[in-house]
Amino acid sequence: MTKNPRIVDMTLRDGMHAVDHQFTPEQMADVATSLDAANMDVIEVSHGDGMGGSSINYGISAADTEAYLDAVAPELSDTELSVLLLPGIGTIEELDLAIDKGADICRIATHVTEADISQDHFEYVNERGLEANGLLMLSHMASPETVLEQAELMEEYGADAVYVMDSAGAMVPSDVRDRVSLLASELSIDVGFHAHNNLGLAIGNSLAALEEGAVTIDGCLRGLGAGSGNAQIEVLVSVLEKSGYDVNPDVFGVMDAAGDTLVPMLDADTMPTLDNDSLTLGYAGVYSSFLRHARRAADEYDLDPREILVELGEIGVVGGQEDIITDVADRLANESTGGND
Amino acid sequence: MTKNPRIVDMTLRDGMHAVDHQFTPEQMADVATSLDAANMDVIEVSHGDGMGGSSINYGISAADTEAYLDAVAPELSDTELSVLLLPGIGTIEELDLAIDKGADICRIATHVTEADISQDHFEYVNERGLEANGLLMLSHMASPETVLEQAELMEEYGADAVYVMDSAGAMVPSDVRDRVSLLASELSIDVGFHAHNNLGLAIGNSLAALEEGAVTIDGCLRGLGAGSGNAQIEVLVSVLEKSGYDVNPDVFGVMDAAGDTLVPMLDADTMPTLDNDSLTLGYAGVYSSFLRHARRAADEYDLDPREILVELGEIGVVGGQEDIITDVADRLANESTGGND
Repeated sequence: MTKNPRIVDMTLRDGMHAVDHQFTPEQMADVATSLDAANMDVIEVSHGDGMGGSSINYGISAADTEAYLDAVAPELSDTELSVLLLPGIGTIEELDLAIDKGADICRIATHVTEADISQDHFEYVNERGLEANGLLMLSHMASPETVLEQAELMEEYGADAVYVMDSAGAMVPSDVRDRVSLLASELSIDVGFHAHNNLGLAIGNSLAALEEGAVTIDGCLRGLGAGSGNAQIEVLVSVLEKSGYDVNPDVFGVMDAAGDTLVPMLDADTMPTLDNDSLTLGYAGVYSSFLRHARRAADEYDLDPREILVELGEIGVVGGQEDIITDVADRLANESTGGND
Repeated sequence: MTKNPRIVDMTLRDGMHAVDHQFTPEQMADVATSLDAANMDVIEVSHGDGMGGSSINYGISAADTEAYLDAVAPELSDTELSVLLLPGIGTIEELDLAIDKGADICRIATHVTEADISQDHFEYVNERGLEANGLLMLSHMASPETVLEQAELMEEYGADAVYVMDSAGAMVPSDVRDRVSLLASELSIDVGFHAHNNLGLAIGNSLAALEEGAVTIDGCLRGLGAGSGNAQIEVLVSVLEKSGYDVNPDVFGVMDAAGDTLVPMLDADTMPTLDNDSLTLGYAGVYSSFLRHARRAADEYDLDPREILVELGEIGVVGGQEDIITDVADRLANESTGGND
């Protein structure tokens, strides 16, 4: 069992999804200051979809990467600064900027089966002397063996750590244990875990990951983040301390960062909730963008949109395959008619 | 591993705490109808503190036990009806009434170290031919061995099942595993588990309990309930089905009971949240009534109220011992001054 896990706060990155990427540089500086005072290990700063994510497609952020890093970097004493890069969205120019501004860690994220697009990025980050972490998104969509293969690619490219990302909040603890334990036993680099709360398991799954050998865990203040949010980091730190882990962040300090610094910045409806929509996405294991399409197809074919989403999860659709939804609805409607005849 | 757990919905009992015991009989009938349609195993109906709880002390409910049972009982086909009785609050007269109105199960709750006050009640429930379940409240305050001793008393008195109740939401999974596994191996009756979400672990702990041999689990629609609420039952059912359990309730049906029936009855601020206050109570392992007293003492002695609550949890205070709070604050203030000299 890991005794001293590293805790990564992503309030100013994955949490950006919950505020439509509208944190101001001043707000970011305030949150960073309170997290640094609480002795947080790492904070990650960027658009929710990583550097370069600010766009019509992913949402225009309130400021650009340079303004955010200029606001946050000077506030940090011992807390390390991480940036996120998705190959295809962020560029080498943005990475250079982040390095100039004082980033300590670059996390490079790909779909769980597409690690091979990250080779150049890992090599460049290594060349520049930063810590490089690999994030395998939507890891629930691949078998533990496939997740391992992809993690081994990232290790080969120069990753210092690889994360199992439960991006859709779709894993139950056994899914987490299967993947994390395999990576922890086969890789010679660190293993991390990143939870979402769509099945109410963000904290439970994070504990399961640590028990299986993960050594670094993501979270956000007040559980901010896409879907039902990420692991609520003040809860995570409290639970880890209560469970006998030696955590660097101070429990009351992280609570204060949440309650005194972050919460006053937020509208009540910004708080992530676990409602039927987010639960359905976790249960089906599909990305939130499919919800709207499934509803439209369900109307047209007189189906329950949840049936369509569960079927989409089973066949493993990913972004860009939205046209499959009508085919699935058509088939389900025919099966249902056939069954009733 | 249990393959077919029994799921108990307490929206109309523990959930009453979240609405100040103000559900109307008509609202209860609507919720009961939707849960019965979803094939819920059991629903529990009464004031949040059990039959007879309606009082100045515990809060006056919108209607009395008779009106609630008259509204709910006729709506149930296969779903069983449970009532809650706390010796000292509810009486034999109320139990007779519940039996006349069609209750199938009586759950009898005591503080974890006070099972001995429940003997008459178990014997009477057995005499009347109902299923009798024992609930050991605040089970985190006693060692696994003490919880077992108390559970054995209830078994001896005639309990058909005993529940480990994490009433303050203060247990981490290892706490649950230690207690549930011991009871499951030593008792010849069923073991149950009841979660609260103050540490974000209501679903994770429920899964841990089932893995250790619990066969019956409590929850509430939308996670309603005292503190940060109970295990969110539509999430629980989804997670159990996804984890390979054979659950009787229908996943989409329970979601519908939550989203279509319950949620329209609630104000937005009725939804349980995991804020710093509820987290602190779970972290410290104390009852919510101490929060106000701790704040007052903290003001007086210039302390952080959380320090006081953690200390109260460590010495294991229970309701009625509020005068200890000033002593604790005084001692902490002296220690802190001494340390700085």
